[in-house]
Amino acid sequence: MHAYRSHTCAELSKENVGDTVRLSGWVHRIRDHGGVLFIDLRDHYGMTQLLCDPDSPVFNEVEKLRAEYCIRIDGNVKARDDALVNPKIPTGEIEVFIRDMEVLGQVKGDLPLQVFGDQEYPEETRLRFRYLDLRREAMQSNMTLRSDVVASIRRRMWDIGFREYQTPIITASSPEGARDFLVPSRLHPGKFYALPQAPQQFKQLLMVSGFDKYFQIAPCFRDEDPRADRSPTDFYQLDMEMSFVEQEDVFGTVEPVLKGLFEEFGGGKKVDQDWPRIPYAEAALKYGTDKPDLRNPIEMQVVSEHFAGSGFAIFAKILEQDGTEVRAIPAPTGGSRKFCDRMNSWAQGQGLPGMGYIFWREAEGALEGAGPLAKNIGPERTEAIRQQLGLGAGDAAFFLAGKPSEFEAVAGRARTEVGEQLDLIDKDRYAFAWVVDFPMYEADEETGKVDFSHNPFSMPQGGLEALEGDPLDVMGYQYDLACNGYEIVSGAIRNHKPEIMFKAFELAGYGEDEVRKRFGGMVNAFQYGAPPHGGCAAGIDRIVMILADTANIREVILFPMNQRAEDLMMNAPSEPTAEQLMELGLRVIPQE
Amino acid sequence: MHAYRSHTCAELSKENVGDTVRLSGWVHRIRDHGGVLFIDLRDHYGMTQLLCDPDSPVFNEVEKLRAEYCIRIDGNVKARDDALVNPKIPTGEIEVFIRDMEVLGQVKGDLPLQVFGDQEYPEETRLRFRYLDLRREAMQSNMTLRSDVVASIRRRMWDIGFREYQTPIITASSPEGARDFLVPSRLHPGKFYALPQAPQQFKQLLMVSGFDKYFQIAPCFRDEDPRADRSPTDFYQLDMEMSFVEQEDVFGTVEPVLKGLFEEFGGGKKVDQDWPRIPYAEAALKYGTDKPDLRNPIEMQVVSEHFAGSGFAIFAKILEQDGTEVRAIPAPTGGSRKFCDRMNSWAQGQGLPGMGYIFWREAEGALEGAGPLAKNIGPERTEAIRQQLGLGAGDAAFFLAGKPSEFEAVAGRARTEVGEQLDLIDKDRYAFAWVVDFPMYEADEETGKVDFSHNPFSMPQGGLEALEGDPLDVMGYQYDLACNGYEIVSGAIRNHKPEIMFKAFELAGYGEDEVRKRFGGMVNAFQYGAPPHGGCAAGIDRIVMILADTANIREVILFPMNQRAEDLMMNAPSEPTAEQLMELGLRVIPQE
Repeated sequence: MHAYRSHTCAELSKENVGDTVRLSGWVHRIRDHGGVLFIDLRDHYGMTQLLCDPDSPVFNEVEKLRAEYCIRIDGNVKARDDALVNPKIPTGEIEVFIRDMEVLGQVKGDLPLQVFGDQEYPEETRLRFRYLDLRREAMQSNMTLRSDVVASIRRRMWDIGFREYQTPIITASSPEGARDFLVPSRLHPGKFYALPQAPQQFKQLLMVSGFDKYFQIAPCFRDEDPRADRSPTDFYQLDMEMSFVEQEDVFGTVEPVLKGLFEEFGGGKKVDQDWPRIPYAEAALKYGTDKPDLRNPIEMQVVSEHFAGSGFAIFAKILEQDGTEVRAIPAPTGGSRKFCDRMNSWAQGQGLPGMGYIFWREAEGALEGAGPLAKNIGPERTEAIRQQLGLGAGDAAFFLAGKPSEFEAVAGRARTEVGEQLDLIDKDRYAFAWVVDFPMYEADEETGKVDFSHNPFSMPQGGLEALEGDPLDVMGYQYDLACNGYEIVSGAIRNHKPEIMFKAFELAGYGEDEVRKRFGGMVNAFQYGAPPHGGCAAGIDRIVMILADTANIREVILFPMNQRAEDLMMNAPSEPTAEQLMELGLRVIPQE
Repeated sequence: MHAYRSHTCAELSKENVGDTVRLSGWVHRIRDHGGVLFIDLRDHYGMTQLLCDPDSPVFNEVEKLRAEYCIRIDGNVKARDDALVNPKIPTGEIEVFIRDMEVLGQVKGDLPLQVFGDQEYPEETRLRFRYLDLRREAMQSNMTLRSDVVASIRRRMWDIGFREYQTPIITASSPEGARDFLVPSRLHPGKFYALPQAPQQFKQLLMVSGFDKYFQIAPCFRDEDPRADRSPTDFYQLDMEMSFVEQEDVFGTVEPVLKGLFEEFGGGKKVDQDWPRIPYAEAALKYGTDKPDLRNPIEMQVVSEHFAGSGFAIFAKILEQDGTEVRAIPAPTGGSRKFCDRMNSWAQGQGLPGMGYIFWREAEGALEGAGPLAKNIGPERTEAIRQQLGLGAGDAAFFLAGKPSEFEAVAGRARTEVGEQLDLIDKDRYAFAWVVDFPMYEADEETGKVDFSHNPFSMPQGGLEALEGDPLDVMGYQYDLACNGYEIVSGAIRNHKPEIMFKAFELAGYGEDEVRKRFGGMVNAFQYGAPPHGGCAAGIDRIVMILADTANIREVILFPMNQRAEDLMMNAPSEPTAEQLMELGLRVIPQE
């Protein structure tokens, strides 16, 4: 017989009754039923009930066991009494009478956290004793989910002709927006490598090298300031790139992969088959965000005309200024003063003076628009608004006015809040939307200085010619994919022509010299027959979070840093030795 | 039609004759046959012959093309004349007459290296223009091989119930033998993270967490001094670990994976099915190395008794000292004075005074041992040696004497040299050997100080009891796998019991405090019910090198550092900005 086990803790069934078996695992729970000990023995695969009484030659030793001891037992499989059968677990029909027992790993001292049960612990405790925390059912399940999701992604990418290539992790600093982690060089004191923020340049070089289809489950490193929903050090991307493609080719490649993934791991929730392409400007208007949650049926609309010159002086006055609008957030089924007042308070909590509303009701057999706004603008305008928004009795609408850039974000949050409050969001569904036609540039409100709004490596729509006009009108072949309101993919068709790239950077105030200095490897490569190419990157941690239905990224990472970017279990970061610093030619500046 | 291609450059055949097609790729070669241009168009998948003459509307533009332009063409598929059919490539029966052409990516200036042909370039040129170097056939083939090998490993590991888990890359310094790469922390100025030399501690923590079967294609980081056959920064391992196992369980898991891998990618070479387990001491004696090449049939033997007190004074005298031996390297078919003299010269080139030999020949119908050694020891001893070694006429044997630890390495090289010279090594074969029973400790020759000879985390054979005796007698459950003379796997059954671990470290002079300080995360974890576990790590780069039949690791890495640990293409390492240093709280010490 094998030294440790003849079966796992999930394998034994009625068919094994009478067998002599050997099991290994952890003592999950011990119950003492008047001199008869019941032990739930747990391993990665499941749980088996063990039984021991004074007839067992090892009863005395078994009595001394405590939770989380790692043990090996030999015993006989017995059928449980019908009344004691547990249909919820695969081994629920049997139990094993312990004949022999060996302690493989003892527990010394008290357990800092219990594996059995649902007790909550402070995150610091969980991270410091992560190896215990990870034994808990929810963590085992999250981590195997993550592993299975990544495996499934790989299988799906291989199946459609992509190969995975590993790009360097110790490489050059490449300012892409976030801060680099630096790695001092010992062989070249005073010089530093950097960890890649993303394999962006390398994957583009692979296209120039002719590899045609690339993907990688790639670790990405950004020295970020702490925030609850992101790792302060690193995260994983499904990074992919293709040559000789246009935007729709990338969509056509990514969609089946992600649909399949969400169908496989989505727990039976509906996966939308139709993924609309929404221009950035439209997304901003209708949803107040570039990552719309399409499970929420609410679409905002411009209703300026109904307020221009109306009796609602505040809006009428705002509309006299250039670039202003009034937008409506329709709220089907929200047609009560109580609900409208609640939303108004919510808006005040968001720092707004309030949020105007109209709600419609049946009054004496007729449809009536109610609320202060309706009174101010009168029944005709109220009715015109109702018709435009397609609302009826029992519905409401909220209104925000001003420069869209100033209220779009809060309008988006209001849309979400209305959807949540009125239970309009179908929680059993994954809804996707490609957001396209992002502007290449944005201007600083105060200085007017033009800079890239997103990825500087994207191909401007219209090419070189488009760059001759107003930069703020230029859109890029750049796209995001939103799922249930989270951005899960971001990508672009790249700018593979050096002359267009230099021009694009020039508009943002970067001269040719600086571009060569910062992105030399890639710019040089583009001089030697670069193919058109594009791709995207999907956030693995984010996707697993959505599938595991958790909002805390540390629930889907094995050994995460805490929010101060520390690993208390491994003691990182820590002070280097004087010898290490000497070898690197570095000195630590004393902090005050 | 698609914007860039209706087919790849490997797809068109006789069945497409008459079709209008669109292809994209690189101009591999241009031949001008008296006004008719033939262009080999290359993409990742293959090559298609294009044809253009003055009848084509784009002849003038096609004439301007040069090697490595990236182009898109439209054209008509034509059958080649029978005499011009090239059966060596899939598209060899057709050619495409160019009707339309677009330059997608131009080449500016001269190509620093040619993609077409076999011209050799200095490695610095190849690395600086890696994106061109990678377009060459051999590099495309090496990189796709690597990608396919890694994919196959993953598939095979999943198939036997392993899951891949990602362990941290930004983590704690954990001195495991080599030098760490450090990463300064911005949030904790003066403190540093480290990149993992291997996920050793994390995979053991995963076992403590109950994950049972783990693997990872893991990047490992070591700040190594430059050497031709290794990367100076990072390398990849198939890292794996299992709970509730003994040594043979690990072998039984790894063997089918690697056998399958070598059968899949070994190019039809024979893959040995029987993998012997050879104790370390036996490997040292028979093969002079702990990574024996079993394709070489030569096994060395101890022949001291035949020289003790013999007429060959040098050996006889050596044997009077304690701990000395004479070992023979049999050389079947090497029985000529010419060959023996050549080996003697080889030995002098290795720094030895020479290498004694006997060779056997037929002389006047009788078997005769020839050479100076045979004369000195006389025919009886010579015959006894021949019989022990099982040699005959036409064979030879070489002899080395002294303390084995002083000549074992050169004896191993001599065995290889003899095997190579006499063509005894079957090059069409992959031969594997597990080397087991490594000593846990070794003593410094001068100081006598005892230290770990390999991995300090291995379980000593015999457990705590064995550690009470002479440390130098203790063997570990530690093992290597050799393939054709290369170490490709290394692993161990781990020491999961804190009390045995502290004792093991104590013997090597490390107190409990120091062990807790250096390996605190793991040692703490072992107090909470650690399971017995073991595993190994296989070198991915090494395996791909063997399969690609190259001795240079940079031939199987996409973007390797040069031997000064620099990336000249991306300009790494480079000088940080003053702001970066300031944020990290560091100052660079000026170098003299």
